[in-house]
Amino acid sequence: MDHEVADFPSGPLDEYRKKASFNWKDMLRFIDGEEIMQFKQRIFKTLENDPLFARQPGEDVAIEKKRELTFLRAKQLFRYDFMTVEEAMANPWKAVALDDCLGMYDWALVAKFFLNKGMFGATIANSGSSRHKKYVESTQDMTTYGCFALTELSHGSNTRAMRTTAMYDPSTQEFVISSPDFEAAKFWVGNLGKTATHAVVFAQLFTPDQVCHGLHSFVVPVRDPKTLLALPGVLVGDMGKKLGQNGLDNGFAMFHNVRIPRDNLLNRTGDVSPDGRYVTPFKDPNKRFGATLGALSGGRVYISRMALINLKLALIVAIRYSATRRQFGPKDTEEVPVLEYQLQQWRLIPYLAAAYALENFTKSTFMNFVEFQIGQMMKDNSDRQAEIGREIHAIGCSSKPLGSWTAQRGIQECREACGGHGYLAMSRFGDLRDDNDPNCTYEGDNNVLLQQTSNYLLGWFRSKLHDGVRIESPLHTVDFLDDFQQILKSRFTATTQNECVDPEVPLAAYRWLVCFLLEESQKRLEQERALVNNDFEARNNSQVYYCRSLAITFIELNCLQRFHELTSDKDTPPGLKPVLRKLCALYGLWSLSSHMATLYQGNYFSGRRPAELVQMSILTLCSQLKDDAVALVDVLAPTDFILNSPLAYADGQLYKNMWSTVMQGSQVLERPSWWKEFCSDKPAVGSLRAKL
Amino acid sequence: MDHEVADFPSGPLDEYRKKASFNWKDMLRFIDGEEIMQFKQRIFKTLENDPLFARQPGEDVAIEKKRELTFLRAKQLFRYDFMTVEEAMANPWKAVALDDCLGMYDWALVAKFFLNKGMFGATIANSGSSRHKKYVESTQDMTTYGCFALTELSHGSNTRAMRTTAMYDPSTQEFVISSPDFEAAKFWVGNLGKTATHAVVFAQLFTPDQVCHGLHSFVVPVRDPKTLLALPGVLVGDMGKKLGQNGLDNGFAMFHNVRIPRDNLLNRTGDVSPDGRYVTPFKDPNKRFGATLGALSGGRVYISRMALINLKLALIVAIRYSATRRQFGPKDTEEVPVLEYQLQQWRLIPYLAAAYALENFTKSTFMNFVEFQIGQMMKDNSDRQAEIGREIHAIGCSSKPLGSWTAQRGIQECREACGGHGYLAMSRFGDLRDDNDPNCTYEGDNNVLLQQTSNYLLGWFRSKLHDGVRIESPLHTVDFLDDFQQILKSRFTATTQNECVDPEVPLAAYRWLVCFLLEESQKRLEQERALVNNDFEARNNSQVYYCRSLAITFIELNCLQRFHELTSDKDTPPGLKPVLRKLCALYGLWSLSSHMATLYQGNYFSGRRPAELVQMSILTLCSQLKDDAVALVDVLAPTDFILNSPLAYADGQLYKNMWSTVMQGSQVLERPSWWKEFCSDKPAVGSLRAKL
Repeated sequence: MDHEVADFPSGPLDEYRKKASFNWKDMLRFIDGEEIMQFKQRIFKTLENDPLFARQPGEDVAIEKKRELTFLRAKQLFRYDFMTVEEAMANPWKAVALDDCLGMYDWALVAKFFLNKGMFGATIANSGSSRHKKYVESTQDMTTYGCFALTELSHGSNTRAMRTTAMYDPSTQEFVISSPDFEAAKFWVGNLGKTATHAVVFAQLFTPDQVCHGLHSFVVPVRDPKTLLALPGVLVGDMGKKLGQNGLDNGFAMFHNVRIPRDNLLNRTGDVSPDGRYVTPFKDPNKRFGATLGALSGGRVYISRMALINLKLALIVAIRYSATRRQFGPKDTEEVPVLEYQLQQWRLIPYLAAAYALENFTKSTFMNFVEFQIGQMMKDNSDRQAEIGREIHAIGCSSKPLGSWTAQRGIQECREACGGHGYLAMSRFGDLRDDNDPNCTYEGDNNVLLQQTSNYLLGWFRSKLHDGVRIESPLHTVDFLDDFQQILKSRFTATTQNECVDPEVPLAAYRWLVCFLLEESQKRLEQERALVNNDFEARNNSQVYYCRSLAITFIELNCLQRFHELTSDKDTPPGLKPVLRKLCALYGLWSLSSHMATLYQGNYFSGRRPAELVQMSILTLCSQLKDDAVALVDVLAPTDFILNSPLAYADGQLYKNMWSTVMQGSQVLERPSWWKEFCSDKPAVGSLRAKL
Repeated sequence: MDHEVADFPSGPLDEYRKKASFNWKDMLRFIDGEEIMQFKQRIFKTLENDPLFARQPGEDVAIEKKRELTFLRAKQLFRYDFMTVEEAMANPWKAVALDDCLGMYDWALVAKFFLNKGMFGATIANSGSSRHKKYVESTQDMTTYGCFALTELSHGSNTRAMRTTAMYDPSTQEFVISSPDFEAAKFWVGNLGKTATHAVVFAQLFTPDQVCHGLHSFVVPVRDPKTLLALPGVLVGDMGKKLGQNGLDNGFAMFHNVRIPRDNLLNRTGDVSPDGRYVTPFKDPNKRFGATLGALSGGRVYISRMALINLKLALIVAIRYSATRRQFGPKDTEEVPVLEYQLQQWRLIPYLAAAYALENFTKSTFMNFVEFQIGQMMKDNSDRQAEIGREIHAIGCSSKPLGSWTAQRGIQECREACGGHGYLAMSRFGDLRDDNDPNCTYEGDNNVLLQQTSNYLLGWFRSKLHDGVRIESPLHTVDFLDDFQQILKSRFTATTQNECVDPEVPLAAYRWLVCFLLEESQKRLEQERALVNNDFEARNNSQVYYCRSLAITFIELNCLQRFHELTSDKDTPPGLKPVLRKLCALYGLWSLSSHMATLYQGNYFSGRRPAELVQMSILTLCSQLKDDAVALVDVLAPTDFILNSPLAYADGQLYKNMWSTVMQGSQVLERPSWWKEFCSDKPAVGSLRAKL
């Protein structure tokens, strides 16, 4: 039987809710499904009912306190054990839903919990062998607390240049872990600041013959689990305050000849015999490379989702606010909701369309990743499996930039669109902006990652040009490129807005764009190679306006394509199709509008009409969607407790909720403790001028 | 005799400093001049030498403490009295230099100091009469502390809709100030949260005959200066945490029949006689309107400057960092500074060019404002004076969006360009982003303000079309529009990069753009008027892609034009002209590149070549300027103490400075106070599952 979805409390938002063109509960059911809907509600209610999770909107919490609270909350998650490993295996999407829910509450908590069980535990499970099982198990019940230590103070993206060393000493059968200097201190390691007892440390493995075998990972105890005091030889501490996610204790560590047993080498890809010989099981490095790339993609695919969650929260706040905030009007006596203004619609509604597009996209790419993971678990050594790994890598390296940048810009627009009130900490825009920001950076800087995607596309293109290979990939994201010559001959043909709001119009334009940029990037690369005679520089000089744009348009196309497939799928409820189709068209045209110069440049657009059509269609779609906007964010909204922004509680009582939050602030009506500093000891003006 | 400018300490930045094409000390002298240079150094040193101003990069300070410190520092500024009123009158630019210096330290401090002396004091001086002099004087020595209370919880932009009332009671010759309900509470008032004793309150003035005479301002005592306790009938308090600038105590107030003497009405524009008749001295409301608009512009003109200061600080950090951070390289053995990458150059150097353009622009527009202010003080009632008022208003309403958005985007780009380390609080990017953000909102939301500029331009355009008026304004910013028909016939003619890097190329393109958008906006407005038959809606529906773009391109053109004039001025030192000219061309082309779709749409660009030329010229200029980038930020840089970002101290010892900052953090190596929460009381996994 269907779970009953509760109605929202009646209030100022009723007006828009009544005007919606679709049933928001049907949309919720369509997107989440019964099981996930109930699961999410259960998590929301559990957190709300537990005083340990209580908080005040916009409250000021010291870092020390944030770290303590986050640790205690993470510990409580062990007790709730919202999802067993078996449940996650049975329905991997449910694991995402769990992180979504906890992330809506606080991403630092997700990180603190996940970096131990997921990143530390899973890395050991994937990179180690049976002898390391004890570490995985001890993270499950918090006997130990783990972290993942790769980056160093002076190296991030360039992982090969890490300088921490692990020298094997056959006399004691130990590895000696050393940081040559503080520039090689492990840095940015989540959980290492306060709580980690063990770290997976990446270090250059040296055998006794002084041969370096490259970066390997080792389990290194760093703190005594009985006391949380640093172990001898380990200088470990807290990096201090970050822009956001301060509940997570990022830390650093330097190792001074720290000895660990030989067994602590995670030996899946290479091992050292007791007497000090290096052995590796690998035969086909090419296949292995594809698999490794794929395995690395899980994080990036999920980061796109994290960013989307942040974007959703910002949109819920900004759109409910815009529907209840009234300012000016056609008559002096009556003010209209700011959502009625075309400018406000244009600032917010395209991001709402992007959120719906990314909702589908992040789910769909996650399912691709699951397919890949299943192949890995089945020990699938086929070419296809390796090829999926490469394709997932290309998708993840551009979906993370797409998701994180869309969210970062969208949050900023939402902040500004709520004016001064959006600048109050209680709005939550500050935390959203700060907490989303690292999504642009970790698991690879967005701009650097995009190069992986363009390399993948250029690789296919060259194979076709030089070897006549048919372009066809397991997930079919690049198949259209095989027709690039035909596509490059196509032109923009829509002549009316009616034609233009068909998602096929931006899709066709995007296909042309990707082909155009692919060809241009290839040309540019060749020119540069001829010019500088140095592949490193040639590549670097082909990024801006070429390879970078290529990767961005490719992933936007893919996101749009998948959304379009959803809106036209026969299983999509007919009552939802019209609004989804509008969202899809708006997302497509709005994204496309930032590439119009290129469309003109390559003559896909010509004359005044195409740009005008795209722009007017965007405005028309915004105006058509504005009455659906509140219902569309209602679908995405968690409970008020989780949302934690009185600018946008479900009852729409904007000012009442803001006012009561202000009144419940700390010492709001009291005079300051330092009032005497004002009332006595008045400054003698200019008395210190002589000191200048 | 020339003041000796100290060299920077030798270190890793030497390499770039040596490669600079110009002498950075000459540039500093050219931009600031001897007097300002020395003045700035004196302020920097004074703050550094005063322990009250001591701070640690990235430290975590509770809001209560921030407010206390900011108050104590503001009080100390009375003692330093860095600039007397006479000095400010003699050299108004020096007053800007003072705020620049203090703002580089902390904008909340500037606001706390300025809102009392400037905003409260100056408003009374300008809007009141001799009977109010005592209030102005008492703010000078901190006997009272003032604030400016205009916006209410439910009204910001729509000032006319404010609902606080001031009823005149002739029986006691008092005004009764009342807030009808909490939605009309004064809100967002800087200084009102903790310290204000008096407020300039804007309220609807009612005479005993129940006639409302519109919004007027009144001096209302809110707290007892002897105790800082709220006065009877005044509910006054702190709004709580904001996204940034938390040293400033923004507050709210509700008034319950608070009685103030009749004399407390600021009566420059209207007064009430003892028996309750309303009298106003004004005859020519049109001239008055121009003057009022001009007077409102001081804040906006200076906000552009505040934003620029933030952008400068971010660029100093990002560029010095990029010159010392090495990652990857053509050979495995040698890594190159990330500033060597074209992508990094393209991300940062255009913003550096924008900073130099805005440096000149904010100074130049400030001087326009000073000219206007002098006219006001001279009681200049000429048409020209009113016309300057209108023009300054049009400039201020678009220069604030230009400055604040450029800074907000630039800071975000700098943050991301510094990767993970840019996410450390010690980088200062978080504070810069948070503290710059309100520049997009206060004194009018950027998008709303831009309408004022486009209205101004459309007004001129219609006067020409309908009345044949010659377009010519006192500051000449619109004069070119008189040739709009000729300009609209012009086309892009550059055919080589050499031609394209002449600033005249983007200038000509911008002139065409503004004329094109002006004509299009006017057409759009007329179409909409014909369609909706309602001026309010017609205007609203003409903003996106039309009036909004018109205002933005107009102000970008003006900024570029003024920069170009500087680079070609005969008094500009020849040794600096080449680099300034490159910066000017880069700023122009880079800004222009976001309007290329419109240039194609209107056929100013055609074919593949123009966009390609613009893009390739941008990359060439970035590459030419990368060796100057460090010297260019050296010119803008305050002392390390003021900069407060170990990512970018002048010695370039990136990792040493970062490491020692980490090591000096609070409790960095200690175990957390809550360590037992980890070590004992281990969670029983799933023990709370039953509760779900």
